[in-house]
Amino acid sequence: MKCYDKSVNPINGKEYSIPSIIDDREIIDRFIAKTSKPVVVVQGLGFVGSVMSLVCANAINGEYLVIGVDLPTKNTYWKIKSINEGVFPVIASDPKIDEFYISAKEKGNILATSDSYAYSKADIIIVDINLDVDKQSDFFGELNDFDVDLTSFKKAIKVIGENCKEDVLILIETTVPPGTSRKVAYPIIKDCLNMRKLSINKFKLGHSYERVMPGPDYIDSIQNFYRVYSGINTESADAVEEFLKTIISIKKYPLTRLGNTNATEMAKVLENSYRAMNIAFAVEWSRFAEESGVNLYEVVDAIRMRPTHKNLMYPGIGVGGYCLTKDPLLASWAKQSLFNSSEPLNQSIEGVKINDKMPLYAFKFLKKEIKDLKDKKILLLGVSYRSDVGDTRYSPVEPFYKYLIKDGAKIILHDPFVKFWEELRVDVFQNINKVLKNDLNIVVITTAHSCYKDSRDILELILKQNNLFILDTVGLFNNEEINKIKSKHRIRIIGRGDIN
Amino acid sequence: MKCYDKSVNPINGKEYSIPSIIDDREIIDRFIAKTSKPVVVVQGLGFVGSVMSLVCANAINGEYLVIGVDLPTKNTYWKIKSINEGVFPVIASDPKIDEFYISAKEKGNILATSDSYAYSKADIIIVDINLDVDKQSDFFGELNDFDVDLTSFKKAIKVIGENCKEDVLILIETTVPPGTSRKVAYPIIKDCLNMRKLSINKFKLGHSYERVMPGPDYIDSIQNFYRVYSGINTESADAVEEFLKTIISIKKYPLTRLGNTNATEMAKVLENSYRAMNIAFAVEWSRFAEESGVNLYEVVDAIRMRPTHKNLMYPGIGVGGYCLTKDPLLASWAKQSLFNSSEPLNQSIEGVKINDKMPLYAFKFLKKEIKDLKDKKILLLGVSYRSDVGDTRYSPVEPFYKYLIKDGAKIILHDPFVKFWEELRVDVFQNINKVLKNDLNIVVITTAHSCYKDSRDILELILKQNNLFILDTVGLFNNEEINKIKSKHRIRIIGRGDIN
Repeated sequence: MKCYDKSVNPINGKEYSIPSIIDDREIIDRFIAKTSKPVVVVQGLGFVGSVMSLVCANAINGEYLVIGVDLPTKNTYWKIKSINEGVFPVIASDPKIDEFYISAKEKGNILATSDSYAYSKADIIIVDINLDVDKQSDFFGELNDFDVDLTSFKKAIKVIGENCKEDVLILIETTVPPGTSRKVAYPIIKDCLNMRKLSINKFKLGHSYERVMPGPDYIDSIQNFYRVYSGINTESADAVEEFLKTIISIKKYPLTRLGNTNATEMAKVLENSYRAMNIAFAVEWSRFAEESGVNLYEVVDAIRMRPTHKNLMYPGIGVGGYCLTKDPLLASWAKQSLFNSSEPLNQSIEGVKINDKMPLYAFKFLKKEIKDLKDKKILLLGVSYRSDVGDTRYSPVEPFYKYLIKDGAKIILHDPFVKFWEELRVDVFQNINKVLKNDLNIVVITTAHSCYKDSRDILELILKQNNLFILDTVGLFNNEEINKIKSKHRIRIIGRGDIN
Repeated sequence: MKCYDKSVNPINGKEYSIPSIIDDREIIDRFIAKTSKPVVVVQGLGFVGSVMSLVCANAINGEYLVIGVDLPTKNTYWKIKSINEGVFPVIASDPKIDEFYISAKEKGNILATSDSYAYSKADIIIVDINLDVDKQSDFFGELNDFDVDLTSFKKAIKVIGENCKEDVLILIETTVPPGTSRKVAYPIIKDCLNMRKLSINKFKLGHSYERVMPGPDYIDSIQNFYRVYSGINTESADAVEEFLKTIISIKKYPLTRLGNTNATEMAKVLENSYRAMNIAFAVEWSRFAEESGVNLYEVVDAIRMRPTHKNLMYPGIGVGGYCLTKDPLLASWAKQSLFNSSEPLNQSIEGVKINDKMPLYAFKFLKKEIKDLKDKKILLLGVSYRSDVGDTRYSPVEPFYKYLIKDGAKIILHDPFVKFWEELRVDVFQNINKVLKNDLNIVVITTAHSCYKDSRDILELILKQNNLFILDTVGLFNNEEINKIKSKHRIRIIGRGDIN
C-alpha cells in the first residue's frame, strides 16, 4: 500500500494516509452479512449526505444498513475513517446529530467506505454529491459569466451504473439543473446496465430534493419537513414514496408527488431563486431608505404584519451559502442548455448579480465614513454566512474581508461557531472579551448570531472603548442602545437612513 | 344657475346638471348644527374615499359627522348627489357596504358636497384623492418612459390649506411618492396658513396608507386590518393614532407607528412593489415550465407548503388594478426627484415592465396555436383584473382584447361582475349559457372568478361544443377535466408545459 497523500480530520487533527488501492470488500460483506436489513448507500458525505446517512440509519418506519460512500481524496477520505472510528465528521449545534450517530453505531447500522463495491450491495442509492456552478466573477463580485460542468456528476452516476443491482432504486437528492435526471442520469444508467447485459427495465430512478439546514435543526430539516418527489416513471415515483415514508414524519409533513423529475428539479431551484430574488429586492430599498432618512427595519416589520408579506427580507451585508448563490444560475443554464431555450432566466440571474455585489456596497458604505483604512484595526463580528451556524461557504464576509485587506486594514475575526476559516486559512477568535478591547478603530457586525443579539456583552464592551466607528450590517442594536453608543462613538447601520 | 355639462349616475342612469356655482354652505351648516360630533371631511370619493366615509360614519369607538367632498365634474358630481339621495355610489359584493350606508344615513352622519366650504368645518380631513403615474407605453405594453405630475395633488392640498381650521388634523391616505407629506404637503399647508395670518404651529399632518380591497371584504379591509401610520411630528402622530383607534379594530389589528412620514409612504409603495415583483418572478418560470413539460401550478403548490414561501405566485395573464401597475414607478420617481438619488429603483421598474408585457405573451401563446385570428369568434371569460370583483381598472384583459381586435377577431365578453366595460365602452354578458354556445372558435379564460372555478357549468357547456380551442390563462381545470376537454377540443394552459 503506497501513500500518495494525507487527509487530515480537522476535528481532532488526526492524519490518514490515502491508500492507492481501495478494497473494503471484506468489511462491506461483513457489515451486511449480519442482518437482512435493506442496504442504503449514500453517495457523497458532505453537509447533506453525512446527515442523510444518520437519518436513514435511524429510520422512523423500518431499519436500514447505511453505507456512506465518498472519494478517497484529501478533503474527503478522513470522513470515511472518522465515521468508522467513532467521530462524526460534522459538528453542529443540533444535539440530535450526536444522538443519531451514537444510536446508529450501537445498532450497527452505519459504515463508510471509498470502495465502489458498496453500490453493488445497495437496494437504495441516494445521490448527495455536489454539482457546482463555475462563476466567473471579478474581485468586486461582478458576475461576468458562468458555466455548468456536468463531468463529475456524470462520472458519479456512471460509477453507480457500473456497479448497481439491476433493480436498484436510485434517488437523486443533489440540486441539479432541471432536466438532469431524465436527460443525463437516466441514459447513463441505462447504457451501463446494457453494457453489463442486465435488464434496463427494472431499476427505479427518482428525484427528491433536500431542504437541509445545517444548524440547530439539522436533523429535523430532513426528518421533520416537507418533501417533494418524483420518478422517471410511476414505478419509480412509487418506490421513492415508499422509501421516503420510512424516514420522514409524513403525517405532520405530507409528501408531495410531482408529475415528472423536471418538475421537482425545477421546484428546488425555483424556491432558492425566489429567496435570492427576495434578498436582492431589499438591496435597492436599503439604498432608498438610507437616502431618505428611513429605518428600513421598522418598515419591513410593519409590512410583515400582513400574512401575504411575511417573508419580506431585511437589509444586510449579502447572501452566502452553497445554494442561493448558484441555484438561479443552474436553472438558467438548464433552460438554455438542456431545453434549448433562447431566453435565459434574466431576473433570477440579476438577483444573483445584485446579491454578489452587496459586500462591495457594505465596503463602500464604510469607506464613505472612513476614507483611509490603511493600518486601521478592524474587528469583524461573525464570519459565517448565516446566523447561529458555523458555515463559511461562500460567506459574504469573505469578499468584504478581502476588500479591507486590500486597503491595508488589520483585521481581527470573531465567530463563536468558527475556529478556523477554511476558505481563507485564517484563525477566528471565540472569546469576545479578548477581541473587543483596546486599540480597535472599527467594529463591523457582519453576522446576526443570536449570541450577539441576545447578549448585551457587546454593548458593554463597546461602551468601554473610546472613539470607535461601528458599522452594523445586520441591525443588531435597538434605538436606545444606539443612542448610548452614539454618546461615545460613531455608528452607521446599513438600511437605516435615520441614524447619522 | 347655468348648466355646463351633465353627470350621469351609472347605477340608475339618473342625470345631474353640474352647476357653475357650488354653494352648499347652508346645507353644511344645517348638517353640522344638529350635534356636537367632530367633523371628518373625506377628500375624494373614489374606491377608497367613498368607503372610508362609511367606516368613519360608523366609527367603532366614537361618532363622527362625515362630509365626503369631490369635484363637480362629469365623472364625480353624480356621486355627491347619489350619496345625498340615498344611493351609495359603489356596488360591491360586500353586504356591509349597504349596511354601513343605511346606518350612516339613519344616524344622520353622512353628507356629500362639492363645496370647499366643508373643509372649514373639519376637525379631521382625510386625503383620498388619486395620484397617478403617466406611463408612456406603446401598444404592446412596452414601457418607454414614465413621469409623475403632482399638480392636481398640490392643488387639492392647497384647497385644504385655504379653508381649514388652524388646528385641523390632516391625514393623507393617498399612495404618494415617499417624501410627499413632508416635502410637498407640509409647506403648502404652512404657506396657506401664513397667508391667512393663522398659526402654523397648531395643525397636525400625518400619513397612514390604506390597504383597501374592493370586493367581498371591502369594509373589513379598512376596519379589520393592520395599519401603519406616522406624523410630521410627535403631536401629529399622536393625533393620527387617536383617530385611527376610533375607526379600526386595533385589538385584533394593532397599529404600527413609524419614525417619519417618509417611512410610511415608503412602506406602501414597497409592499406593492414587492407584490409586483413576485408576480414578475413567475413570468420567466412559466416560460421555463412550458419549455420543459412542467406543470408550474403543481410546483408552486408544492413550494407553498413551506411557511417561508407561502406567497409565491401562480402563472397568469398579467397584473392589473390601480396600485401594482404604478406604485413601483411612484417610488422610483420619488427616489430620484424628491431625494436626488442618481439611481432609480431598477428592479422594481423591471417588475412593472415584465408584468406589462404579460398580456402580449398570452396573445402570442394563442397565436402560436391559431395563426389566423381574422373573423375567429372568441369568448373571453372575465374582464376584471381580479377574481370575484368587478374592477376593470388597468385590467390585463384590456390590452389582450385590443390585440385580438387588431387581428380581426370577433370578441364576446363575459363577466358576472361587470355589465359595461367603462374603459373600452363595450357591453359584457352575464349569462354564461347564452355566450358559451354555437359557432365559437376559441374560449379564453381570462379571470379566475370563483364562479368559474366552482361551477362545472363551464365544463359542461364546453363539452357540448365541437372543435374549440381553449386557452386557459388562470389554471381553471384539474387534470381529469382537462382530459375530458381534450377528448373533444384542443386546450393549452399558460404555465403548463405538460399539456399538449
